[in-house]
Amino acid sequence: MRFDEAYSGNVFIGTQSTFEESTVVLYGMPMDWTVSYRPGSRFGPSRIREVSIGLEEYSAYLDRELHEVAYFDAGDIPLPFGNAQKSLDIIEDYIDGLLEAGKKPLGMGGEHLVSWPVMKAAAKKYDDLAIIHFDAHTDLREEYEGEPLSHSTPIRKIAEHIGPKNVYSFGIRSGMKEEFQWAKENGMHISKFEVLEPLKEILPTLAGRPVYVTIDIDVLDPAHAPGTGTVDCGGITSKELLASIHAIAGAGVNVIGADLVEVAPIYDNSEQTANTAAKLIREMLLGFF
Amino acid sequence: MRFDEAYSGNVFIGTQSTFEESTVVLYGMPMDWTVSYRPGSRFGPSRIREVSIGLEEYSAYLDRELHEVAYFDAGDIPLPFGNAQKSLDIIEDYIDGLLEAGKKPLGMGGEHLVSWPVMKAAAKKYDDLAIIHFDAHTDLREEYEGEPLSHSTPIRKIAEHIGPKNVYSFGIRSGMKEEFQWAKENGMHISKFEVLEPLKEILPTLAGRPVYVTIDIDVLDPAHAPGTGTVDCGGITSKELLASIHAIAGAGVNVIGADLVEVAPIYDNSEQTANTAAKLIREMLLGFF
Amino acid sequence: MRFDEAYSGNVFIGTQSTFEESTVVLYGMPMDWTVSYRPGSRFGPSRIREVSIGLEEYSAYLDRELHEVAYFDAGDIPLPFGNAQKSLDIIEDYIDGLLEAGKKPLGMGGEHLVSWPVMKAAAKKYDDLAIIHFDAHTDLREEYEGEPLSHSTPIRKIAEHIGPKNVYSFGIRSGMKEEFQWAKENGMHISKFEVLEPLKEILPTLAGRPVYVTIDIDVLDPAHAPGTGTVDCGGITSKELLASIHAIAGAGVNVIGADLVEVAPIYDNSEQTANTAAKLIREMLLGFF
Amino acid sequence: MRFDEAYSGNVFIGTQSTFEESTVVLYGMPMDWTVSYRPGSRFGPSRIREVSIGLEEYSAYLDRELHEVAYFDAGDIPLPFGNAQKSLDIIEDYIDGLLEAGKKPLGMGGEHLVSWPVMKAAAKKYDDLAIIHFDAHTDLREEYEGEPLSHSTPIRKIAEHIGPKNVYSFGIRSGMKEEFQWAKENGMHISKFEVLEPLKEILPTLAGRPVYVTIDIDVLDPAHAPGTGTVDCGGITSKELLASIHAIAGAGVNVIGADLVEVAPIYDNSEQTANTAAKLIREMLLGFF
Amino acid sequence: MRFDEAYSGNVFIGTQSTFEESTVVLYGMPMDWTVSYRPGSRFGPSRIREVSIGLEEYSAYLDRELHEVAYFDAGDIPLPFGNAQKSLDIIEDYIDGLLEAGKKPLGMGGEHLVSWPVMKAAAKKYDDLAIIHFDAHTDLREEYEGEPLSHSTPIRKIAEHIGPKNVYSFGIRSGMKEEFQWAKENGMHISKFEVLEPLKEILPTLAGRPVYVTIDIDVLDPAHAPGTGTVDCGGITSKELLASIHAIAGAGVNVIGADLVEVAPIYDNSEQTANTAAKLIREMLLGFF
Amino acid sequence: MRFDEAYSGNVFIGTQSTFEESTVVLYGMPMDWTVSYRPGSRFGPSRIREVSIGLEEYSAYLDRELHEVAYFDAGDIPLPFGNAQKSLDIIEDYIDGLLEAGKKPLGMGGEHLVSWPVMKAAAKKYDDLAIIHFDAHTDLREEYEGEPLSHSTPIRKIAEHIGPKNVYSFGIRSGMKEEFQWAKENGMHISKFEVLEPLKEILPTLAGRPVYVTIDIDVLDPAHAPGTGTVDCGGITSKELLASIHAIAGAGVNVIGADLVEVAPIYDNSEQTANTAAKLIREMLLGFF
Repeated sequence: MRFDEAYSGNVFIGTQSTFEESTVVLYGMPMDWTVSYRPGSRFGPSRIREVSIGLEEYSAYLDRELHEVAYFDAGDIPLPFGNAQKSLDIIEDYIDGLLEAGKKPLGMGGEHLVSWPVMKAAAKKYDDLAIIHFDAHTDLREEYEGEPLSHSTPIRKIAEHIGPKNVYSFGIRSGMKEEFQWAKENGMHISKFEVLEPLKEILPTLAGRPVYVTIDIDVLDPAHAPGTGTVDCGGITSKELLASIHAIAGAGVNVIGADLVEVAPIYDNSEQTANTAAKLIREMLLGFF
Repeated sequence: MRFDEAYSGNVFIGTQSTFEESTVVLYGMPMDWTVSYRPGSRFGPSRIREVSIGLEEYSAYLDRELHEVAYFDAGDIPLPFGNAQKSLDIIEDYIDGLLEAGKKPLGMGGEHLVSWPVMKAAAKKYDDLAIIHFDAHTDLREEYEGEPLSHSTPIRKIAEHIGPKNVYSFGIRSGMKEEFQWAKENGMHISKFEVLEPLKEILPTLAGRPVYVTIDIDVLDPAHAPGTGTVDCGGITSKELLASIHAIAGAGVNVIGADLVEVAPIYDNSEQTANTAAKLIREMLLGFF
Repeated sequence: MRFDEAYSGNVFIGTQSTFEESTVVLYGMPMDWTVSYRPGSRFGPSRIREVSIGLEEYSAYLDRELHEVAYFDAGDIPLPFGNAQKSLDIIEDYIDGLLEAGKKPLGMGGEHLVSWPVMKAAAKKYDDLAIIHFDAHTDLREEYEGEPLSHSTPIRKIAEHIGPKNVYSFGIRSGMKEEFQWAKENGMHISKFEVLEPLKEILPTLAGRPVYVTIDIDVLDPAHAPGTGTVDCGGITSKELLASIHAIAGAGVNVIGADLVEVAPIYDNSEQTANTAAKLIREMLLGFF
Repeated sequence: MRFDEAYSGNVFIGTQSTFEESTVVLYGMPMDWTVSYRPGSRFGPSRIREVSIGLEEYSAYLDRELHEVAYFDAGDIPLPFGNAQKSLDIIEDYIDGLLEAGKKPLGMGGEHLVSWPVMKAAAKKYDDLAIIHFDAHTDLREEYEGEPLSHSTPIRKIAEHIGPKNVYSFGIRSGMKEEFQWAKENGMHISKFEVLEPLKEILPTLAGRPVYVTIDIDVLDPAHAPGTGTVDCGGITSKELLASIHAIAGAGVNVIGADLVEVAPIYDNSEQTANTAAKLIREMLLGFF
Repeated sequence: MRFDEAYSGNVFIGTQSTFEESTVVLYGMPMDWTVSYRPGSRFGPSRIREVSIGLEEYSAYLDRELHEVAYFDAGDIPLPFGNAQKSLDIIEDYIDGLLEAGKKPLGMGGEHLVSWPVMKAAAKKYDDLAIIHFDAHTDLREEYEGEPLSHSTPIRKIAEHIGPKNVYSFGIRSGMKEEFQWAKENGMHISKFEVLEPLKEILPTLAGRPVYVTIDIDVLDPAHAPGTGTVDCGGITSKELLASIHAIAGAGVNVIGADLVEVAPIYDNSEQTANTAAKLIREMLLGFF
Repeated sequence: MRFDEAYSGNVFIGTQSTFEESTVVLYGMPMDWTVSYRPGSRFGPSRIREVSIGLEEYSAYLDRELHEVAYFDAGDIPLPFGNAQKSLDIIEDYIDGLLEAGKKPLGMGGEHLVSWPVMKAAAKKYDDLAIIHFDAHTDLREEYEGEPLSHSTPIRKIAEHIGPKNVYSFGIRSGMKEEFQWAKENGMHISKFEVLEPLKEILPTLAGRPVYVTIDIDVLDPAHAPGTGTVDCGGITSKELLASIHAIAGAGVNVIGADLVEVAPIYDNSEQTANTAAKLIREMLLGFF
């Protein structure tokens, strides 16, 4: 051990590139202040990095090793506690900078609202952007009890921004009647309950297009992801979610960014959810970029 | 907020009807004193109500909202700690009253023994009653270490009371050899290990009959319901149990009452089991009544 | 059991009065969105009520029973998730109403920032108001990383509002150097580390004055209150905090309102902190009003 | 390792004597069916044995080693789940047998009601029996919500049986007004809140008398014993309880039996309470017998 | 209860035979000192025994009861903390003794490295030994950060010892690229991700051969086995693992020994993993011997 | 945020100096492989750093801020899992290097055995070295069940190395009779049970001497430090341990190094112990150097 070097302990496993060398930038968005039920996802990115050291750097699924991708772990974006609008502005600026520098963003939440400024920034850069969205919940509300900045609204915001027909949601099992109706009336795709099969049907239609992938960890059944704010039974297995990532990886779409949100360590017995999240991040790094 | 109104915080989500207006009455039976292994289900009903606020009032499965059903949450029936016989008598009286008033009972346990006085009361009112029973365990013992009032006995009691051929058990994976033999010799239906497929075969034969549905949450695999007294691996997923409720809802049987028992919050990481129970109650309210 | 009555399960033990009959109104302020470290206190009021059923209604310390005080549990004030300013405005309006109706407010938090609008409302009604403050932290920041609405600021705000010399803090063991200096330079009282002895010295000087008492549960050592956002060792025992409440109760000051904040159930093994909070609330009800 | 011997893993550390050789018999009473709040103490004796392997066999307090006392661990008395009367009868018979064989009973609970048949059996054998009782609660109720067999009643029962003036309670901080009044009117000793100082005053008056010592672990503050059914803040430290046992050991009273009850492992973070209980049992073995 | 008998509380349910009478010997190997990530499996065997009392003695899968197999629970082999080489030597000696006495070994871990000396001992006695290995990880490393004695190496060691073509691994989803390559180049069988289907294809080729079965509990998905050192999502269900044991039981192979390793109670919410392990042990006892 | 900088997230709060600039070097020793009871302290250093971000950088006890001390966080020393001798050798080499570079070592454990090579290295550099040792346990064994490298032996080793009369132990409440006798016969100082008062008596005799301070967190009562391998009731409060550090800081001894060991996060509800450890490290940084 050379004790004259600065210690940088808590980075995602296998990080080797500098910012300049990197193709992909990994970053955390530790915000949970608009959640309506159980907070705690602010500690998600930090715990995911921490447990990532237990992973292998090789994927037996993709036959690829982490050193084959040039990524940089930029740490958590500092966000002002309790100020949602300012937090979202900071994230958007940050992503604007990343995209300008030609990097692919790979984010870790935090509550799902953090995906909104990222997707908005991506839409500035990429015409014809499509969103692939895995979630238990529609997230299509206009506001939540009067608040337009709520973790129940990000998909509605991006759908209105780039057009609902460019948004594809999978695994949805909860929402208000009005949200499902809005989606239907506006041509947005929602696969209720199911993920892998409908995804495989959609993917060929997206070939060649720039795609942003946003995963709310609660698309998994609570058996597979207890460590999240809102658990909702009847979900899919981690095996199916892995297969879905691999399906996207093999579909010839142009993944220009992605995120994984809503991991909340305090509810996570045995760090099961954080470990699963770390493996999903690894497969996204190896499969998407 | 009108602060001059009495606060009634912990009721099942969406409760709007008075007792008089209601078709269905929801109630808790906080008893766990005869369990042979791990107690704690007395706190099940209270925790299920508490977490139910995280649910949507709309079911994407049944395309129906809670306001479409008139139900009343009567709270927990006060039961004398440690006195099993007296507790069962109180429950039976209570259900007799409900049925006399023309209400459909929807109960939350508590240990499984609480289902016995409910089913007995139902059998007084409904000729030709059938029981649909989801469980990991046979619950067909005559007594447990000398005690005839035990959580291992309720299905034996009702089977002897209304005739074993009117009782249909699904998902059973544990019991004594003698229990399985008794069932076989007496014409009672037991589907070992499996639930949805055999249920779909049985349901047409029950069309038009009055049916009481009793669900022991441990029919689920421990991955899906860790928060219960006796976990037993090899069970079904919450997805399959939801589908089973929906199968009953669509089968044209006359569900005259139902219960969900054995949720024990102290063993329930992330309140996963309580959340699942709340969703199951919602689907039963929307599907059965 | 009369099953034709609305169920109001989760109220503080012994609640018997209507709003009109009551002298004291108990209410929750389920806000935790500005905390800089671990959120979760939004569920504090609900859990305190839930565990209060395990308390006796008689205080062996004060030889008094709960039926001797007319109090009403108004439930939790609905607050907009993630919107700090609006939440504080709602609380202030609510307290204005209570005070106008001649009620004494007894609040349960929630993060400490919720005390600020309550104290501000009290200062409108009571000239010469003094604050007794129990806490591990100074809470005297002007802002936290740029945010003036932070759980680190409420005591600074009230001190500037009514004059620092009217604020008395006890048990303080953490803060920035600048906060301690500000207090010293402005004549505010801070008892570092100690509580009961300095309190007994101060109390005679407050006799006859209107006093608001605000307790951050983290004034207790983490051994006595693990269930809070920011644990800080070196604190006092629950025995000493009980004695402090009893000292105020016997000091001839005019307690015009009080609160207990920062109970966060998710970190609370064995519901120890919630039980302690419930007992403290009982002693405040019996001792202050 | 000799693998041809029966394995007897879970006995209290240092057990070496056979029943015949023993002076003291250690046994568990795994009953918790009458508790009004949180059950789970049925697993107390088993967990205390399990963690006892972490103890030293030497007491630095008493300068004595476990091999100097002849004790036998008889395991848990099998009790019928949910049948309180029968359980108490079995315990009483068991203790009658022990006393007849000239053994000193040292019991582990289970709920506090299990102490009642033990003390009754002791009163048959020993004239002039006195009880030393450590507890947070009076346990002086005649019945609890109609049930005369309740964990709130054992001290009332023994007080009525041998005369209230022969019962000495210490550390009491909770009870109904009527219980404290009954004690006062009938000459029973209750030390409110305090333990060691009043005990030292009482002990000389008991010199030479047969004394049974019953310890409810909740006499400790929840900081020191979170793993119990009813936590109640404002209690004593484990250091003070150890000193109290040592005070009795050095007082020249004739301890004819003892118990430690209400350890509930499920609420016991880090097995802290079970470890404390094991150490208390060791000190009782070395100090009393 | 006969209180004059030695208490042997913590043995696997249904143990009735003496060592001499037994065909199978059950034993624990409480070692976890070489694990690279989270230790704690040393307490696995003890907890598995403890929770086994909640099992039925009858298997509804195999229609067989535990009394039909003569097994003896020899307890845990005492191992020197922190000394890996000496621990492995002790285990090998122990198994040599068992095999010489004509017993079938059924072991409980402990970390996976404990299987190495058992398999080595078995290879001395049985020519043509084959290994069936269930695991999430290859365990084919030569060393781990310089240490040849590591929990990442046991399968490599036995594969080199008896020839890689005699080792069959199932369910593997993690490892280094070099490990998979080594297996491929050396003719060792690895079924990636899948278990039951490839197992059914392999089993006929092993008919009549002596087979040792080693199960790392982490072959299960973390949803089904959170209580282990290294959780790795994308695994199989407990239902599939039960079916795999039953497939081996019905395949006409000669199971000469087996083990189940890596159960770590401290990470095991609701004792789910320990309960599953106990059931798997029961099915192995009833199915293999 | 400048996203072009390497992220070094998990360092102790307030770290600003480079290795060259530093006076004190903070490092972790993540070893727990020789513990006889519950492992897990390998994760102690990492968790202490993680929670340190919740601390203030100012000490109200010492009126000093962290920027006034030049320290460097070197991270955890990489140690070979399960190889005790090699781990100790690596630590000793590492400390030799630090001392040669003129740095003061401040270590975080890990099990207590890690202190042995540090103290040995210090004894090479400093003649007349004295040890101040806070612990619940003597740690004076020669070996543990045959193993000379055990967490029960470090104080014996250093006492034999520098002479028993140069070692001062405080707070000891557990050990074998032989250990206490050895200490007595060899002139080593042991304060049984008590800490602050005897420490104040000893300190003047050490004025001017080089002193190494080693703190086993279990000197605290389990109420104050549940997150450790071996909890032992009857200990001191965190308030007393803070006061002890401050007593040393004000005593004019020359503290040449220090450590804090045995923090085990997995047993640590609410991260209470890790938070306490972080505060103790801060006070040592500010008080000793």
